[in-house]
Amino acid sequence: MAILIKGGSIQTHEERYVADILCEGETISAIGTDLDVPADCEVIDASGCLVMPGGIDPHTHMQLPFMGTVASEDFQSGTAAALAGGTTMIIDFVIPSPQQPLMEAYHTWREWAEKSCCDYSFHVAVTWWDESVSQDMQTLVSDYGVNSFKHFMAYKNAIMAPDDTLVSSFARCLELGAIPTVHAENGELVYHLQQKLLADGITGPEAHPLSRPPQVEGEAASRAIRIAGTLGTPVYLVHVSTADALEEIRYAREHGQPVYGEVLAGHLLIDEEVYQNKSWEFAAGHVMSPPFRSLEHRQALWGGIQSGDLQTTATDHCCFCAEQKEMGKDDFTKIPNGTAGVEDRMAMLWHEGVNTGRFSAENFVALTSTNAAKIFNVFPRKGAIRIGSDADLVVWDPNGERTISAKTHHQNIDFNIFEGRTVKGIPRHTVSRGYWAWRDGELHATRGHGQYVERPPYPSVFDQLKARAEQNAVTAVDRS
Amino acid sequence: MAILIKGGSIQTHEERYVADILCEGETISAIGTDLDVPADCEVIDASGCLVMPGGIDPHTHMQLPFMGTVASEDFQSGTAAALAGGTTMIIDFVIPSPQQPLMEAYHTWREWAEKSCCDYSFHVAVTWWDESVSQDMQTLVSDYGVNSFKHFMAYKNAIMAPDDTLVSSFARCLELGAIPTVHAENGELVYHLQQKLLADGITGPEAHPLSRPPQVEGEAASRAIRIAGTLGTPVYLVHVSTADALEEIRYAREHGQPVYGEVLAGHLLIDEEVYQNKSWEFAAGHVMSPPFRSLEHRQALWGGIQSGDLQTTATDHCCFCAEQKEMGKDDFTKIPNGTAGVEDRMAMLWHEGVNTGRFSAENFVALTSTNAAKIFNVFPRKGAIRIGSDADLVVWDPNGERTISAKTHHQNIDFNIFEGRTVKGIPRHTVSRGYWAWRDGELHATRGHGQYVERPPYPSVFDQLKARAEQNAVTAVDRS
Amino acid sequence: MAILIKGGSIQTHEERYVADILCEGETISAIGTDLDVPADCEVIDASGCLVMPGGIDPHTHMQLPFMGTVASEDFQSGTAAALAGGTTMIIDFVIPSPQQPLMEAYHTWREWAEKSCCDYSFHVAVTWWDESVSQDMQTLVSDYGVNSFKHFMAYKNAIMAPDDTLVSSFARCLELGAIPTVHAENGELVYHLQQKLLADGITGPEAHPLSRPPQVEGEAASRAIRIAGTLGTPVYLVHVSTADALEEIRYAREHGQPVYGEVLAGHLLIDEEVYQNKSWEFAAGHVMSPPFRSLEHRQALWGGIQSGDLQTTATDHCCFCAEQKEMGKDDFTKIPNGTAGVEDRMAMLWHEGVNTGRFSAENFVALTSTNAAKIFNVFPRKGAIRIGSDADLVVWDPNGERTISAKTHHQNIDFNIFEGRTVKGIPRHTVSRGYWAWRDGELHATRGHGQYVERPPYPSVFDQLKARAEQNAVTAVDRS
Amino acid sequence: MAILIKGGSIQTHEERYVADILCEGETISAIGTDLDVPADCEVIDASGCLVMPGGIDPHTHMQLPFMGTVASEDFQSGTAAALAGGTTMIIDFVIPSPQQPLMEAYHTWREWAEKSCCDYSFHVAVTWWDESVSQDMQTLVSDYGVNSFKHFMAYKNAIMAPDDTLVSSFARCLELGAIPTVHAENGELVYHLQQKLLADGITGPEAHPLSRPPQVEGEAASRAIRIAGTLGTPVYLVHVSTADALEEIRYAREHGQPVYGEVLAGHLLIDEEVYQNKSWEFAAGHVMSPPFRSLEHRQALWGGIQSGDLQTTATDHCCFCAEQKEMGKDDFTKIPNGTAGVEDRMAMLWHEGVNTGRFSAENFVALTSTNAAKIFNVFPRKGAIRIGSDADLVVWDPNGERTISAKTHHQNIDFNIFEGRTVKGIPRHTVSRGYWAWRDGELHATRGHGQYVERPPYPSVFDQLKARAEQNAVTAVDRS
Repeated sequence: MAILIKGGSIQTHEERYVADILCEGETISAIGTDLDVPADCEVIDASGCLVMPGGIDPHTHMQLPFMGTVASEDFQSGTAAALAGGTTMIIDFVIPSPQQPLMEAYHTWREWAEKSCCDYSFHVAVTWWDESVSQDMQTLVSDYGVNSFKHFMAYKNAIMAPDDTLVSSFARCLELGAIPTVHAENGELVYHLQQKLLADGITGPEAHPLSRPPQVEGEAASRAIRIAGTLGTPVYLVHVSTADALEEIRYAREHGQPVYGEVLAGHLLIDEEVYQNKSWEFAAGHVMSPPFRSLEHRQALWGGIQSGDLQTTATDHCCFCAEQKEMGKDDFTKIPNGTAGVEDRMAMLWHEGVNTGRFSAENFVALTSTNAAKIFNVFPRKGAIRIGSDADLVVWDPNGERTISAKTHHQNIDFNIFEGRTVKGIPRHTVSRGYWAWRDGELHATRGHGQYVERPPYPSVFDQLKARAEQNAVTAVDRS
Repeated sequence: MAILIKGGSIQTHEERYVADILCEGETISAIGTDLDVPADCEVIDASGCLVMPGGIDPHTHMQLPFMGTVASEDFQSGTAAALAGGTTMIIDFVIPSPQQPLMEAYHTWREWAEKSCCDYSFHVAVTWWDESVSQDMQTLVSDYGVNSFKHFMAYKNAIMAPDDTLVSSFARCLELGAIPTVHAENGELVYHLQQKLLADGITGPEAHPLSRPPQVEGEAASRAIRIAGTLGTPVYLVHVSTADALEEIRYAREHGQPVYGEVLAGHLLIDEEVYQNKSWEFAAGHVMSPPFRSLEHRQALWGGIQSGDLQTTATDHCCFCAEQKEMGKDDFTKIPNGTAGVEDRMAMLWHEGVNTGRFSAENFVALTSTNAAKIFNVFPRKGAIRIGSDADLVVWDPNGERTISAKTHHQNIDFNIFEGRTVKGIPRHTVSRGYWAWRDGELHATRGHGQYVERPPYPSVFDQLKARAEQNAVTAVDRS
Repeated sequence: MAILIKGGSIQTHEERYVADILCEGETISAIGTDLDVPADCEVIDASGCLVMPGGIDPHTHMQLPFMGTVASEDFQSGTAAALAGGTTMIIDFVIPSPQQPLMEAYHTWREWAEKSCCDYSFHVAVTWWDESVSQDMQTLVSDYGVNSFKHFMAYKNAIMAPDDTLVSSFARCLELGAIPTVHAENGELVYHLQQKLLADGITGPEAHPLSRPPQVEGEAASRAIRIAGTLGTPVYLVHVSTADALEEIRYAREHGQPVYGEVLAGHLLIDEEVYQNKSWEFAAGHVMSPPFRSLEHRQALWGGIQSGDLQTTATDHCCFCAEQKEMGKDDFTKIPNGTAGVEDRMAMLWHEGVNTGRFSAENFVALTSTNAAKIFNVFPRKGAIRIGSDADLVVWDPNGERTISAKTHHQNIDFNIFEGRTVKGIPRHTVSRGYWAWRDGELHATRGHGQYVERPPYPSVFDQLKARAEQNAVTAVDRS
Repeated sequence: MAILIKGGSIQTHEERYVADILCEGETISAIGTDLDVPADCEVIDASGCLVMPGGIDPHTHMQLPFMGTVASEDFQSGTAAALAGGTTMIIDFVIPSPQQPLMEAYHTWREWAEKSCCDYSFHVAVTWWDESVSQDMQTLVSDYGVNSFKHFMAYKNAIMAPDDTLVSSFARCLELGAIPTVHAENGELVYHLQQKLLADGITGPEAHPLSRPPQVEGEAASRAIRIAGTLGTPVYLVHVSTADALEEIRYAREHGQPVYGEVLAGHLLIDEEVYQNKSWEFAAGHVMSPPFRSLEHRQALWGGIQSGDLQTTATDHCCFCAEQKEMGKDDFTKIPNGTAGVEDRMAMLWHEGVNTGRFSAENFVALTSTNAAKIFNVFPRKGAIRIGSDADLVVWDPNGERTISAKTHHQNIDFNIFEGRTVKGIPRHTVSRGYWAWRDGELHATRGHGQYVERPPYPSVFDQLKARAEQNAVTAVDRS
């Protein structure tokens, strides 16, 4: 059945114009004014609304086994919530245990994700190193559409990648045309501070941010960026939360290095004071890594978005309910790290970004969809409104209002870091690869409708880096 | 007659793909693989080539009356040379004399430009201030498609705009939805240094850069940006030539201010040592303001392009032949300021930017065409390859080579700052609004084919600034 | 009569050690352990205390005629209050009216100051320009011990110095070996914003900071610094209040330019929210220029002190009582600008600087005394504890406490911006050129004891700049 | 026998004045004009000269066993050369092998150093970690006058300290009141690049800088500084050679962190092109780590000195003769790393710093002597001209000239990186703890005259950090 979206203004990352959109099958088949309604066609009324590319959340963790439990949100519930929020694609993470073959972990995650309601793809984590890992990276790139590999610089004694692994894996990425991504926190310092805080009897969630001060992120960001720069590979920093890390990104970019930064809606909007809250549940509900920060850092992050030093927005959606959080009742290091957000990201960013004049509607589309599509190389299949692009669309009502609450959200978690905030600007309809999944407040998500999206190796950035390497090719001095 | 461009790869500011392009009348009518050749259609063979949006040079001065003479390149010869170089649109400047009504000057320039071979538009300079200027600005915006006004912070005792004019005019621009642009050099300092150098007997062209050191630009950049920031208006800096000015742009952008920067091909590539050359003609041939700079500044400018802090490239094309330059034989302050480049910009940038890996082919298109189209609000009519866009196209041969020389260039000047440089990557064909003007080394430019391009007031940046102003609206404290 | 300070620790800008100090006549005659008590000698018990060089406040305005009234604090009362606070020297300002001969103004101020209780010196303002001003500058330097000239970049239509005056005067300073100092705010922007706010009906003191946003200072700082840099002269910025201006200082210093910055105790400690206070009197009591700022700026200023980019602390002590402030009841632009502080500066800085670990006791002495002595070239006569130095000393009790209040302070004003703050670390005794003026809470200041301090032209910085100029000497290219 | 230095100008880090200096025994006993000549007194004529505190070189490696050989310069020859160059104290390094007890290594070095001709002290390296190292650190601080510990972040598989060692040792330093110092280069990256270069057949000294690009230093600087910042300890970076590392220092200092930076004369003055020299011996003669750099970095380093972000100058004096360098004839990674300089540092810095106007004579004294004395806590015993200070003095002839050459220098090495440079400004006489060791071109150094200098734990910086820690003390939130 076709879908015709009528009467709206198309809003892309670079322009706004009035036109209707016809979706046939899974893709957009026509864009124009006063398009005819074909037979067997649903019509979505977009009057007064903007029609935008569906959101892409490049950082989620559905049903992640982590810290002795499993994230409460599975691929079905999580992708349904995404659709309710205007997001039509997620990029989740395959995280092998140390010594686990990458391919084994990859297949496990692929199986888990089959019940997804919207499209999805996977970053694959490199948590250890030997020749088989290097081989599996090649297989994943060439045969399975993986073009990004994740590295955790934190979580000592678990999945932390030490410097020699980073060097080896980044170098391998360059050979394969894949981009390394990093969680930038110095795991040694975190571990040291955790032990010190526990020894000092500071065991509650207020200790969480104290064990991960801004410098801990700044250090790791600097390290990852410099390793990438030395090897001549691009690098993408997930969940940049501090002025410190942002400054490192900026410095590298000013010097011509291709570095990308992602920021979470939560890091832009939640203050670190939440960890001082008298309610343990409330404080623990906000425990994620890196933690929420002070105003100074949040202002810097907005500036980073505005200047273009940060390109994507995400959520690190990773849900743990109150009873799971209680695992760390007596020891903050055991509180499962993670918060929700996949449903709220777009509305929060519109409200706090566009309504406040911090950025334009064009920027909004770039930040929530197009830039991620480009960086992870699924553009213009995703992130664009063009004939032939996937019919992943959101009809956005800039005047609609909604008060966010765990009581009403579709996410499978009993907590919401944006609880009680009223946003102006909401998704009214969401179309997922040609299927009308979110209909003016009613969720019609379909288990298994979502498909795995292959992402081929990079084109232009790697061409550029190759040219640069040729330019700078080194030769021995002839001293004979 | 239609034109079919066959067998090439379309290269835009965000992607590359194989497709043919059909141009009918003045616009693009079809994009696709294996398009049929219509009747009465010229076919351009683009095998092995990229097909890109024609270049936009947002900073030229054809037949400018300046410093007691008139630029040797007129609108016909200059736009023809532009086409030979792959550039299909220029934005020139209307520069009223102090006290001259803006409308009068505007009509004069429009008349001069009628003989242009490619499309053109005008920035209008505000060189003095009274209520009539304010009125004429409104007329120009609402009736004549002008959305940018230029301000000279240099040239004391001539067209220099003092601070109160800057404040008044920038504020007026904000009301009108037009962007102020500035030539950022502190005219008082330049004047002081010129007098001092002449008094010290340094009268040759080597004195030119000494009278305009980097701080002189940094100062004015800071001042223009801070005035804009205080008033809440965007601002565009023409010909940024120093790390000092770039740093001011960066600082403002990091703090969320919409500031744009333009860089000239010459400032990226020519070293200040040219002014020390033993040949007076050679040294004087390079006299332009701001002057060429040292390696440190050039490296910073490349970094500014790479980080996105500089968005456009231009030439400040303003030609004076040797005998005109001789007016300043005994007094460097009388050497007419200006150099050529409209023909060479794109090839120089491809060679030094793409071939070296400093940026990608996508960036190249953005920097030479699309960004200017967006900032000056003619996108996607210009700067894009889409159905309905103007058929302004260049077929780029990345393997073609050419050695630049005043002897062979089409510019009406006996000097070329890029003399003797061999570039790899050249325009093979140029199509100007559906007319095949440059045909594999043969120039078929047509006098008067070029049309004036109206540029409507800004959409998104001003929406954003309006939202910001509302957000920050000030109220009196009620102390009753 | 001699004075022996016994039992304390001497604390200078670079060390701390236990020793007694003997003052005979106006100077220090001996430093050592267990000094004998001479005949006719007062003994000050410094047990548990530090003995430091008396403070130097390089920025005060006693009995200044300004904005239609005269500052309530005269040279007698103001210098007495200074002594009560541990400060033993002030540098005040001679401010000629436009067109008034500098020498005439200078003599007027000298006469006013004869009743001072502690030593004093004068910066002289250049508020207009012609050849006579240039001549008077020379006279002041060679015959009257003036080595610093002040320039106001704000106060349009009054004492504002336009760019050509700045250029001329800075250049003259270089010839004379005197340092230019600037009040850095863009007067055109302030004027524009003032008119706009009044037109919008925002007439209360809350409009004051809105008419002088941070960029207004950043702009002027950049301009002054770049003018100085271009001419090769040092420059000193008074009352730096913003991250914006600090960033300009830093950028210049990183590039080798001798730029100095002064910060007021108030700008480090008072938040801009005071202007929103419901009490008009309270808000107006804080009106000074530049205004107090937000946390972001205050943090930056502390960082500037810590990194060494800001070298001196001052107060801009300029008192207006409530009834004077009322002149601006209906128009904030008419509220006399100024606040007190000469008595509180040292204790506030100790409490907020040393007690918090922001800086060391050595830094405290440098920031409150020694650095000003060096920059304004009265070191080691002032700012040092050495044999032969003036006996300007303060006995500091790091454990003493005091709650600041207009009710108890010695300043002749009915308001105190630090009202109610309790500081730990207070001056217990103050010795002024050998006279015991402040005795454990009792003020024994003597009218006319203070003397005018001549300050000779600069030695080392100007030597350095001269060497630099020689190094960079420019010559004409020989093209014969 | 006493020494009277007559007729000179005393030049300290903060002033210049005319006075004679009388040295009796090992210290200065009088300073004054027209001092009488005591009996049995040598008189040094200082007419036309400056008398300055003797230089302190805080970074030397005499007779270091390294890379399979031993540095050719021993403590006797090296300290003699120091005296010939105006340097009267060195701080060398005790470098235990991994697993070697610190105390054992310390005693070995103490024994080697007994033949020194000038005073000396030791930093002790922490090259491995266990509880005994922690214990030995305490012993060294409390019983042996060591207040600084060195950490190598480079030299993988040898003395490189991994992150957990850095964290443990820095934390220990804080407890003991000692300052951690670091050689900042990322050893993993260096190793990776070395292997790659060798594999690519680039085996000559031109590969040396390629294996240690600027980012490798920037990374490690960032890491060390952030670890220090997180733990609340100061940190000192030895031989800062890049803009990258300097930027990290600056960023930290702006944010209030006590970070110090040392720069080598060679890094200020030698260009990286030396490694491309056709002569293997010449290129290898310059092999040291970090390597010499491009102009961009050298300019930044000068700026760092001028702004105060770098405080000390040193040489990393570590001599290997041609035949030793030949060990790496076929493999650049085996060329012993090190160059000379202890004799030339002061003259090179005077010539290139003071004569050029880059800094003042006061700055010169601070940079070559006083700042090191303060940071390593031997001030005012060293680095000062005061009664009671050690009689470590240099009589400096600002007009004297000398052409530097391995043929004439006193260093025990057959190579000089400053070969052929003529400096203006040379040491005419050097007095070492009251002994006239360098007499107008004649070296009278005495084996064993030099003494070990104990350096007590820090006073002011640690007081400050303690206050800061108290201020920021963390407490558990009471949620009961």
